[in-house]
Amino acid sequence: MTGRFITLEGGDGAGKTTQAELLSAWLVEHGRTVLRTREPGGTELGLRIREIVLHERGHVSPRAEALLYAADRAHHVETVVRPAIARDEVVLQDRYIDSSVAYQGVARGLGAEHIRSVSAWAADGLVPDLTILLDLDVTVGRARVTAARGDTFDRLESEAEAFHESVRQAFLDMAAAEPDRFLVVDAGGSTEDVQRAIRVAVAPLVAIDPA
Amino acid sequence: MTGRFITLEGGDGAGKTTQAELLSAWLVEHGRTVLRTREPGGTELGLRIREIVLHERGHVSPRAEALLYAADRAHHVETVVRPAIARDEVVLQDRYIDSSVAYQGVARGLGAEHIRSVSAWAADGLVPDLTILLDLDVTVGRARVTAARGDTFDRLESEAEAFHESVRQAFLDMAAAEPDRFLVVDAGGSTEDVQRAIRVAVAPLVAIDPA
Repeated sequence: MTGRFITLEGGDGAGKTTQAELLSAWLVEHGRTVLRTREPGGTELGLRIREIVLHERGHVSPRAEALLYAADRAHHVETVVRPAIARDEVVLQDRYIDSSVAYQGVARGLGAEHIRSVSAWAADGLVPDLTILLDLDVTVGRARVTAARGDTFDRLESEAEAFHESVRQAFLDMAAAEPDRFLVVDAGGSTEDVQRAIRVAVAPLVAIDPA
Repeated sequence: MTGRFITLEGGDGAGKTTQAELLSAWLVEHGRTVLRTREPGGTELGLRIREIVLHERGHVSPRAEALLYAADRAHHVETVVRPAIARDEVVLQDRYIDSSVAYQGVARGLGAEHIRSVSAWAADGLVPDLTILLDLDVTVGRARVTAARGDTFDRLESEAEAFHESVRQAFLDMAAAEPDRFLVVDAGGSTEDVQRAIRVAVAPLVAIDPA
């Protein structure tokens, strides 16, 4: 068995958590050890960084915020992800470099190339074996999120909608540029259909028969 | 009058603080407003970052540490340095990007080009009008530091000495690569001689007669 690093990407409401849970259960059932994680990570440093970003009084400059997240990534990759891969575990991570590029680089305008290069350096070049992009119509995704929260979907939030459209397009552009790394799944399908597509792509990486 | 950004670089014991004080007094005497600052800076975010780096229990990965310092730089440049330059002040800063390159990039082996590129992005391209490099023999510098602390100089610390030699050489290489930005001063001279050389270089930038 070999350690693997699989990331899940996509907008809010696309079903990343549900799909990761189902995939994790299936992997464990087939004898694999799974580490599920996310950034900002569960390290003490990550919690302190998260606290700074969320609770700093006053303004944190956008570049400072991006660099704080990159610092968390550096620490998380070195102390959590790489050791798990070295122990031959399957790491399932909710969001990674592609999210930083889509949200901070593209949608917030800090520059995709800069964000990718800072993140790649932070991670010392660790690239996922597979990135699962759960692609979903922005309006549908936001309706799911607001329904889950019990809110009504506010159609007046058009600026926010343009932001999420730009995130979605950024993910699709990245997937087109790296077709070998990305699996793009239509997250508008049923939970079962989406999970089936994911298992077919993951199976050869973990030497499991997907049937 | 125009805002200016002047940085002081060099190893410990080279006299950066003394020279900055004398230069500041001379500038103020000639009617300029001077902002003296350093990184990690006096912002609340800077203090929190400094606290993380210095007091984190356990290991902080070297890349995470470098990115935390870069985050502090981004915030400090945006909220302290640029506004002061815009108010036509003269900013005298103890250490800047060149120190990160020399200490983290070269001496600690994280890669000069990577550290420079992350730092330049953090600072959104802000380059000093003048960088004063106080160059000093490493043994002399360390003897000054230990004398000031009241310690005796420990000749057995040879590894530390190689580290400081590597920092010194990195500064000299940067100065050679950007002769228009750097003023290299032999910090082994008297305080007065060093200050005179600095004033001659600063004078045209601030429209003061150095005599």
